[in-house]
Amino acid sequence: MANALSLPASGLQLRSLIRKNRELEVSLVTVDVPPPAPNEVVVRVEASPINPSDIGLMFGPADMSRARQTGTSDRPRIQADVPPAAMATIAGRLEQSLPVGNEGAGLVVAAGSSEAAQRLLGKTVALVGGAMYAQYRTAQAGDCLVLPDGTPAADGASAFINPLTALGMVETMRREGHTALVHTAAASNLGQMLNRICLQDDIGLVNIVRSAAQEEMLRAQGARYVCNSAAPNFKDDLTQGLAATGATLAFDAIGGGTLAGQILTCMEAAINRKPGPYSRYGSTVHKQVYLYGSLDPRPTEFSRAFGMAYGIGGWLVFPFLDKIGQADTQRLKSRVAAELKTTFASHYAGEISLFEALDLNRIAVYNKRATGEKYLISPLTALTSPGKDR
Amino acid sequence: MANALSLPASGLQLRSLIRKNRELEVSLVTVDVPPPAPNEVVVRVEASPINPSDIGLMFGPADMSRARQTGTSDRPRIQADVPPAAMATIAGRLEQSLPVGNEGAGLVVAAGSSEAAQRLLGKTVALVGGAMYAQYRTAQAGDCLVLPDGTPAADGASAFINPLTALGMVETMRREGHTALVHTAAASNLGQMLNRICLQDDIGLVNIVRSAAQEEMLRAQGARYVCNSAAPNFKDDLTQGLAATGATLAFDAIGGGTLAGQILTCMEAAINRKPGPYSRYGSTVHKQVYLYGSLDPRPTEFSRAFGMAYGIGGWLVFPFLDKIGQADTQRLKSRVAAELKTTFASHYAGEISLFEALDLNRIAVYNKRATGEKYLISPLTALTSPGKDR
Repeated sequence: MANALSLPASGLQLRSLIRKNRELEVSLVTVDVPPPAPNEVVVRVEASPINPSDIGLMFGPADMSRARQTGTSDRPRIQADVPPAAMATIAGRLEQSLPVGNEGAGLVVAAGSSEAAQRLLGKTVALVGGAMYAQYRTAQAGDCLVLPDGTPAADGASAFINPLTALGMVETMRREGHTALVHTAAASNLGQMLNRICLQDDIGLVNIVRSAAQEEMLRAQGARYVCNSAAPNFKDDLTQGLAATGATLAFDAIGGGTLAGQILTCMEAAINRKPGPYSRYGSTVHKQVYLYGSLDPRPTEFSRAFGMAYGIGGWLVFPFLDKIGQADTQRLKSRVAAELKTTFASHYAGEISLFEALDLNRIAVYNKRATGEKYLISPLTALTSPGKDR
Repeated sequence: MANALSLPASGLQLRSLIRKNRELEVSLVTVDVPPPAPNEVVVRVEASPINPSDIGLMFGPADMSRARQTGTSDRPRIQADVPPAAMATIAGRLEQSLPVGNEGAGLVVAAGSSEAAQRLLGKTVALVGGAMYAQYRTAQAGDCLVLPDGTPAADGASAFINPLTALGMVETMRREGHTALVHTAAASNLGQMLNRICLQDDIGLVNIVRSAAQEEMLRAQGARYVCNSAAPNFKDDLTQGLAATGATLAFDAIGGGTLAGQILTCMEAAINRKPGPYSRYGSTVHKQVYLYGSLDPRPTEFSRAFGMAYGIGGWLVFPFLDKIGQADTQRLKSRVAAELKTTFASHYAGEISLFEALDLNRIAVYNKRATGEKYLISPLTALTSPGKDR
């Protein structure tokens, strides 16, 4: 334990930089680890998931199909070019070397003098807030979620974003007057969580997946309505699920293409199965799709064939939590802590080191953002580790 | 006056019917004019505008470029075919012969026994609620807006939809926490009204038009920010106007294509001109576009290059008035009545009879839905009238 609890002078941190000349550079830098201030702790990061939002920051809009491996084996570097048309969208980050990694978990190896910080020494904690793709991360004591004794860091690495996102969706549904949900890319870790929440809370959920295998997996987990968008009868299936559940709110991780509009069209068709007078403006039932992801980077396209009572908008978990306030956020966090090994368990396709995170072959795999194929970064893993599959 | 105040046994009414065999038929039918119930009046319709929403009900999604003129000169009929793909959007109206014409004005020629109805006899009133493309229209006395003595019916024909829509946009802006507006197809009658309201109420308004002539016309009416979407520097102009006004809410009559997304992109660019920390999720300022029309019937397409704090939705004036309630609606209506000849004046490209409304050459003109080229139907005009230009 003496070793584990010693404070190193410095550690590696992953950085993403886009220069004005349109060049992306992702690299590992050595950063100092200063002694913690009274209310701070230093966490030795042991596990941090690669979420789509992390990939978005790490690679930006660069063309990764033509990325170049540069640097050395102990200081690998990835370079790639950002298409000219995409530069306007990232004007705010140019020439800034940005740390990456939204969340993770690890051991508190140093603590400031305050009681709150000292209490965390030697505990495994989960954290959110960026810069987690690093060997060490300084944090406010109050921002740490203490994991139950004996919980491996990997089990707490995704304790914030996916669990709070899934709970935030259900909370949004209630606050906006809907009674059931639609979710796309529903076989994802997040989708499986949402399915478990909805089963537990008896909420109607229509799961949209992209393959028969994903459909089977969700059904085996008790999902009642699962629609495969690759199947020829998708629209009928979806309309049937919408009519059965009464869902008028969807959370869409895909973003691009025509899926969001198809969902609205099928919602309207399900609503219009009930008899009523004709209005060329469509039903008066408000139908909403929130785009919370962008797995398909193409433009979003919809045909407005679903009346006038609809909305399409962006949705992000942290602004949502800001809106509902601290007390309600704490209620959601407490549920996550209590059900971390059940409802909010995550599954990973594999673990990779910081060095492997900058390996072109590894990038080709984790950058596919394949549903259910999430990777963990283990910043402690040494250069020579072959990476382990879970 | 004796003649004017006599109740006829029947009158002509324009009807639109789409059959299951995909055939649209628009025709004139003779309908009985029953004596009014105690609280009812019978209005001899003298003027009713052709709004885009009327055209939408009259022709539905039929292919009017291949419409056929049938029937006789005193009972003209238009037939056209609905493309198979569009049939699902109109399932609710099939095989129903629907009256058309949202609003209009005319003389009360018969009144029920109640005091409220009797008071209206001989008055010129404005009405909304459908079936106005007819020689006679029975209405509840309470639904009539009495025009000041001596007001021609044509001046009150558009007293509801455009005025309340323009006021509803400003009201929506205030209720949703925005401080300035963007409007597209801004050279329309509605756009000119909105410009007058915003000048009067000192509200920032960015007008988007589609030609230099429209730009000049609005500038001559005092508009400060006018952007021509056909000009090469459109995006810069728009961003400049958005930055100057702080507008984060747009009402878009176009609907199809990329304009709504362009507005959101330029709003985000205007917001990001103020310095602040970089977030790959974009600014946290909510940007909203309401699509209230569909002048471009193509799908709506947007690239999501404006962060995550945005919404795109449908907006309709009558559901909005239902939402704000009777007292606030009455406040808006009173303003319309008080400013009917100034702020809320409408201009028409011409007047046509019910017979001419079913003439293919006339349809080709009014169905262009050209901005600022609005037509009035005068149901009293006899068959032989050549139609008059105003």
